[in-house]
Amino acid sequence: MKYPNSLEGLIEMFSSFPGIGKKTAERLALHALKFDHSKIDEFINSLDQIKEIKKCRKCGNITTNDLCDICVDNNRDNKTILVVEEVKDVIAIENMNEFNGLYHVLNGVIDFSNGVGVDDININSLIDRVDNDNIKEVILATNATTEGEMTARYIKNILSDKNINVTRIAYGLPVGGNLTYADELTLKKALEGRRNY
Amino acid sequence: MKYPNSLEGLIEMFSSFPGIGKKTAERLALHALKFDHSKIDEFINSLDQIKEIKKCRKCGNITTNDLCDICVDNNRDNKTILVVEEVKDVIAIENMNEFNGLYHVLNGVIDFSNGVGVDDININSLIDRVDNDNIKEVILATNATTEGEMTARYIKNILSDKNINVTRIAYGLPVGGNLTYADELTLKKALEGRRNY
Repeated sequence: MKYPNSLEGLIEMFSSFPGIGKKTAERLALHALKFDHSKIDEFINSLDQIKEIKKCRKCGNITTNDLCDICVDNNRDNKTILVVEEVKDVIAIENMNEFNGLYHVLNGVIDFSNGVGVDDININSLIDRVDNDNIKEVILATNATTEGEMTARYIKNILSDKNINVTRIAYGLPVGGNLTYADELTLKKALEGRRNY
Repeated sequence: MKYPNSLEGLIEMFSSFPGIGKKTAERLALHALKFDHSKIDEFINSLDQIKEIKKCRKCGNITTNDLCDICVDNNRDNKTILVVEEVKDVIAIENMNEFNGLYHVLNGVIDFSNGVGVDDININSLIDRVDNDNIKEVILATNATTEGEMTARYIKNILSDKNINVTRIAYGLPVGGNLTYADELTLKKALEGRRNY
């Protein structure tokens, strides 16, 4: 016996997520069978709604508008840009309640071994912002991994002839660690200890 | 900054699955943002389609019809019923290609500490089948856990005055182990070594 095709379809869908193997996908799909129809509709609805989410035209963060909530917030220091790899890093920094500048979300890192080059991530628009928005400081907060470090160095080099301060958050995070999972105190220390780069 | 409401909705939905914590749910939802709209529609479609899946009226297995593929298969030995806890156990046994009888899916186990009593799982319909379908043997293949063992004993007792053979699969599986994750050889040995119960 095989599972009904409709269930196989759902198992396959769950399997397509990173970190979800066949067994886990099966478990999730079988669990979904226990949902009543209204809960399935809720699930469908939440999937349908994320179609409205797009990238902020300015910083690459997620938003349902043209610009994200942070970019349009006049109370923020719009002379400082903190550069992160992923949207979830923005959330991690925001939860710390210590940073009041703007963000730039690269949506990736330079990773030649996986075919991700400079033009595949959101770097060019960062240069535009530095050129046009009177930016004073760019804080590089990519992860303390080989790729994160390489990406930070690349951005540092490309911004070196501009009249701005380029800093890197301190190695408060353990080397090889991932910014998203750092505790808030570590993140705070890392931000305070930033150095010229 | 919080995530957009639509994304929060999806994160919450993923969190409602067992074994999926907040961080994992966040990771899955953010990954879903990378899907193009056609893939999201595919996901929606596969969720919509599982609404058609129901329980086999006879054995409790999943099916899109009134009776499941196994119950309507005339080539199977309809005098033998193998009793399992969950649908995924049926798949595990079927993948072994050694068993040609019918199944009975309890959809749970007796577990008083979690408030699951005899009437909350699919036991009464098993008794009906034994009474009406000229069954010769009931093989109890609940897991080798306290609850699985208790459920097997309960069924053994309730069937003891019927003129049928009640067997239990052998402890080829490690005690405390889960039937779904056993390898096929272990499952085969367990089936071969079944004893009167």
